[in-house]
Amino acid sequence: MKRVTERRTYSYLGPAGTFTEAALDQVPEARGHEWRPVHNVGEALADVLEGRSDAAMIAIENSIEGGVSTTLDALATLPGLRIVGEYLVKVNFVLVAAPGTRIDQVQVIAAHPVAYAQCHGWLGAHLPQHSHVPASSNVASAIGILDGSLPAEAAIAAPGIVAHHDVEVLAEQIGDNDNAVTRFVLVTRTTAPAAPTGADKTSLIVELPVDQPGALLELLEQFSTRGINLSLIQSRPIGDELGRYRFVLDADGHIHDERMADALLGIRRFSPRVVFLGSYPRADRKIVHYPERYADEVFVEARDWLRALVAGAPDA
Amino acid sequence: MKRVTERRTYSYLGPAGTFTEAALDQVPEARGHEWRPVHNVGEALADVLEGRSDAAMIAIENSIEGGVSTTLDALATLPGLRIVGEYLVKVNFVLVAAPGTRIDQVQVIAAHPVAYAQCHGWLGAHLPQHSHVPASSNVASAIGILDGSLPAEAAIAAPGIVAHHDVEVLAEQIGDNDNAVTRFVLVTRTTAPAAPTGADKTSLIVELPVDQPGALLELLEQFSTRGINLSLIQSRPIGDELGRYRFVLDADGHIHDERMADALLGIRRFSPRVVFLGSYPRADRKIVHYPERYADEVFVEARDWLRALVAGAPDA
Amino acid sequence: MKRVTERRTYSYLGPAGTFTEAALDQVPEARGHEWRPVHNVGEALADVLEGRSDAAMIAIENSIEGGVSTTLDALATLPGLRIVGEYLVKVNFVLVAAPGTRIDQVQVIAAHPVAYAQCHGWLGAHLPQHSHVPASSNVASAIGILDGSLPAEAAIAAPGIVAHHDVEVLAEQIGDNDNAVTRFVLVTRTTAPAAPTGADKTSLIVELPVDQPGALLELLEQFSTRGINLSLIQSRPIGDELGRYRFVLDADGHIHDERMADALLGIRRFSPRVVFLGSYPRADRKIVHYPERYADEVFVEARDWLRALVAGAPDA
Amino acid sequence: MKRVTERRTYSYLGPAGTFTEAALDQVPEARGHEWRPVHNVGEALADVLEGRSDAAMIAIENSIEGGVSTTLDALATLPGLRIVGEYLVKVNFVLVAAPGTRIDQVQVIAAHPVAYAQCHGWLGAHLPQHSHVPASSNVASAIGILDGSLPAEAAIAAPGIVAHHDVEVLAEQIGDNDNAVTRFVLVTRTTAPAAPTGADKTSLIVELPVDQPGALLELLEQFSTRGINLSLIQSRPIGDELGRYRFVLDADGHIHDERMADALLGIRRFSPRVVFLGSYPRADRKIVHYPERYADEVFVEARDWLRALVAGAPDA
Repeated sequence: MKRVTERRTYSYLGPAGTFTEAALDQVPEARGHEWRPVHNVGEALADVLEGRSDAAMIAIENSIEGGVSTTLDALATLPGLRIVGEYLVKVNFVLVAAPGTRIDQVQVIAAHPVAYAQCHGWLGAHLPQHSHVPASSNVASAIGILDGSLPAEAAIAAPGIVAHHDVEVLAEQIGDNDNAVTRFVLVTRTTAPAAPTGADKTSLIVELPVDQPGALLELLEQFSTRGINLSLIQSRPIGDELGRYRFVLDADGHIHDERMADALLGIRRFSPRVVFLGSYPRADRKIVHYPERYADEVFVEARDWLRALVAGAPDA
Repeated sequence: MKRVTERRTYSYLGPAGTFTEAALDQVPEARGHEWRPVHNVGEALADVLEGRSDAAMIAIENSIEGGVSTTLDALATLPGLRIVGEYLVKVNFVLVAAPGTRIDQVQVIAAHPVAYAQCHGWLGAHLPQHSHVPASSNVASAIGILDGSLPAEAAIAAPGIVAHHDVEVLAEQIGDNDNAVTRFVLVTRTTAPAAPTGADKTSLIVELPVDQPGALLELLEQFSTRGINLSLIQSRPIGDELGRYRFVLDADGHIHDERMADALLGIRRFSPRVVFLGSYPRADRKIVHYPERYADEVFVEARDWLRALVAGAPDA
Repeated sequence: MKRVTERRTYSYLGPAGTFTEAALDQVPEARGHEWRPVHNVGEALADVLEGRSDAAMIAIENSIEGGVSTTLDALATLPGLRIVGEYLVKVNFVLVAAPGTRIDQVQVIAAHPVAYAQCHGWLGAHLPQHSHVPASSNVASAIGILDGSLPAEAAIAAPGIVAHHDVEVLAEQIGDNDNAVTRFVLVTRTTAPAAPTGADKTSLIVELPVDQPGALLELLEQFSTRGINLSLIQSRPIGDELGRYRFVLDADGHIHDERMADALLGIRRFSPRVVFLGSYPRADRKIVHYPERYADEVFVEARDWLRALVAGAPDA
Repeated sequence: MKRVTERRTYSYLGPAGTFTEAALDQVPEARGHEWRPVHNVGEALADVLEGRSDAAMIAIENSIEGGVSTTLDALATLPGLRIVGEYLVKVNFVLVAAPGTRIDQVQVIAAHPVAYAQCHGWLGAHLPQHSHVPASSNVASAIGILDGSLPAEAAIAAPGIVAHHDVEVLAEQIGDNDNAVTRFVLVTRTTAPAAPTGADKTSLIVELPVDQPGALLELLEQFSTRGINLSLIQSRPIGDELGRYRFVLDADGHIHDERMADALLGIRRFSPRVVFLGSYPRADRKIVHYPERYADEVFVEARDWLRALVAGAPDA
């Protein structure tokens, strides 16, 4: 029987050459489908919510900068989305300029703010007097110094820039950390979580109750008391007043795991607002380990025991 | 329609006149049925387990002495029992002797060990040089000094003793605490817990896992994280080696309460051995209060939410 | 210079032949000094407090029965005492009777209540219909059946009884646990704790604040958050009303250890009443292990750091 | 004696008209002294560390965006600094353009990234198709569109912009939150903390030990177990690998408070790296309240008690 393949659309932060495009390139199901470059995360997610795209690839966390604020805040406030996969892209940077420029002529540097922050150490050591002009992407920074639209002598860009634009590399590997990676997630409209793979991650955004000191403590205990590790803990201000936070969390495991389901119940009962972002396979495919006492069968056995007690059967 | 009343049998620590009989006297359903005096708690529980009795009244806790070891250890090790009710009896004591005895002639005092302990303060103040001969009950102490079977000049007994035996009261109200009470429980074979009354108590015996420091901490957290108060915490050695304990616990609430059921599940998953002794109305009929966040409907709502997430419905 | 040895007095629960005497026999410093047999724990401690004795040997815990209530309550309420050593005595029991008695003639058994409890299993299996007459010691039980002062046909006694009295052994090793031991402590008037040996124990009695649910949790955390294990946790009712407890605790380590001193400070701040019973060498001489992060030098370093901060020195 | 006033220098993010200048304007001691505009936070802090300035005013937290990453990372990694005061500035924004521009002509918006994020809601509603060109400050955005150095038709700027530049306001109050404030801190070289005022705040940066799950839990407990509230909890990646965080914390109270000093000791013992940023008066001058059991005298009394125990004095 012939399978009729539907044509799908994927939104991503363009133009071609961005790290986001490199992430999308890792998605086998996306090959041969339409890739739609957009200007910002909000637009990518709106594409999904309003049906223009089937999925959006967005940066969510960076090993240097931490959670990407715009992404986290969008996911916290836009209902109807779900993360279905994650992808890691190694990031490093070059300092480029128009051909003929010498590094001692550089006073102003064009760079996307996140890239700029990741080169903080190198810049402080080599160009301590520089000032910074922000660019809208790691490609736009280079274009801006070439066409004169950004008032800078050099730009921080992704290494691939030399393939597309006539720039001279003044310095390579200027990122402060050789192991820097950015984590991207693929987001669709709400859908049932795919079956567990044993190497899964569950993402949540949790608002803390206002009137309870120790509320964050209580949130973390929901995980620790069920043997669940957290790989991301990111505070974000709720925005209504200083001192009110929501927390973005990545927890090891899948909503189909008994211990995760139980933790989610505990969090739901305690938090005024929980956004479940999804359970999906980890990019690194590392199997999640947990103490035997939190295995599924332990939960099942306890429920059987309780049922027997209520029915009046003797306790075993 | 005429209800045919079955004749029932109740075992209790005799003889007539003990505090246990006073407790049984508080049970309306027991009136007009057979009351069977026995010699010790083990015999009372064996009567129930082997079908000679329908229920046994046994002392479980005392405001001065704490948990009654024999009772707690029997409940911990004999399967097939369930507590169905609790009853409080005010206890106080008199010092009695054969007629004509003067208090300055008293050197040895006959007393049941629990009664003896409750009069410790008075004895230390008034008869510091006395020694103690244990008697098997608060009635046997008095009989023993009268018939010479106990080598003592005076006995500690319940105030009612004067109605049955020819003794002289040397001192009244010699108990160290005017508010001393003993708590008794009525025990049957395993049966389904009666419906909650809103003023209920749940009794458990929990063994701690050996290999986990902080295990008691974790046990207590199972209650505190669900807004459940404990009114009894009694450690008892398991008996196989020094330093291993089981804990006898009375928790406010009923197994039909969502928060209690959830706590029981948590304890069952963590403990190598849990004995559920029963959920039953409190003797004092005090309504159990708990934070609104642990109400039944909060648990139900969280389960509905989780079910919707797994099904792929958007989170509310 | 010649050291003049002072003659010292040691009080213990007599008569000769008790397990308490066996404990005192383990104290090298006691040899050749006066041993003073007394009738009860209260008398032994009064001897110390009032200067008649230099020290008293008293039973504090039993591997079957748990803490010895009278001892724990006396230590909780009598100020001015300190534990300076602990000693373990293996306990087992025989069932004895007047020569010529057959076991099938035994209906009533004389036994000290603690001994009786330790033979509960054997008695339930072999003499289920027996009743119990309490005796004041493991020696008095045997004497009582011989001289007729106790109305019983058999007695539970310590194995050494056959050397002193004309009894016939009906059954040996009737204790429920072959490894049963009783722990004794040597108590003096308040004195500075001896230097740490590395294998020490600290004993405390702590009253919980009334108005705080989770108070026991908080007490236990004072130890767990400093890497200190507890080898004894014994609840005792305070005695004023049902549901109020004090806790008797043995913690691994010495008051001279920084982590123990810090835990004691935390407990003192939180508890309405703490009795420090002493830091003394463990009977088993087992070296106390603890996580490196709770070592003395870590505490000292932190204090140095804090002092520097307050002084305005840069943080290291 | 005549006091010779030294001339002092204050660095701040310029040019004149920024919110940072408004913060510096709140410092009475800075009036009449030299104000030195700089290009970025790193330069401001370098001025202080290298002696070109006596103090620097820098933005540290924003009610919409949360902690300012560059500031937090600089404070985490540069030794020798101390916060001596905090200042709040209300922030709101206008959308401006060259005279004659209509809002329907706006496709690209120049804005400082933090300002941009604070207008996210308004932009999504009114200009959903816009793209963003980052500017280096809230003043540079407007200058950039006027002089053509930024490729945008409109700019997000502070309301005061109209006083200095020939722009037309297209929309006012476009910030998503009317109560948005930015919190600034005044930073000097390391110095002893000023005396407590009763309304103080202590700022810390704490790295978590890698090998301990539940490490964040333990960090938070250091505060909760001493009755100390946290008003800021901000996670920042350490930057060496995904999943490793440091935490920026503002705690209510002063290092001279016993409970805060004790918490600092606990944190120092547990964390591989703690940066004490300072204890300083709160901008809102709100008196810090705490449970009576954490009062200074409770700590002092406990220390006296411990000292007496070690000396061999009876426990009170």
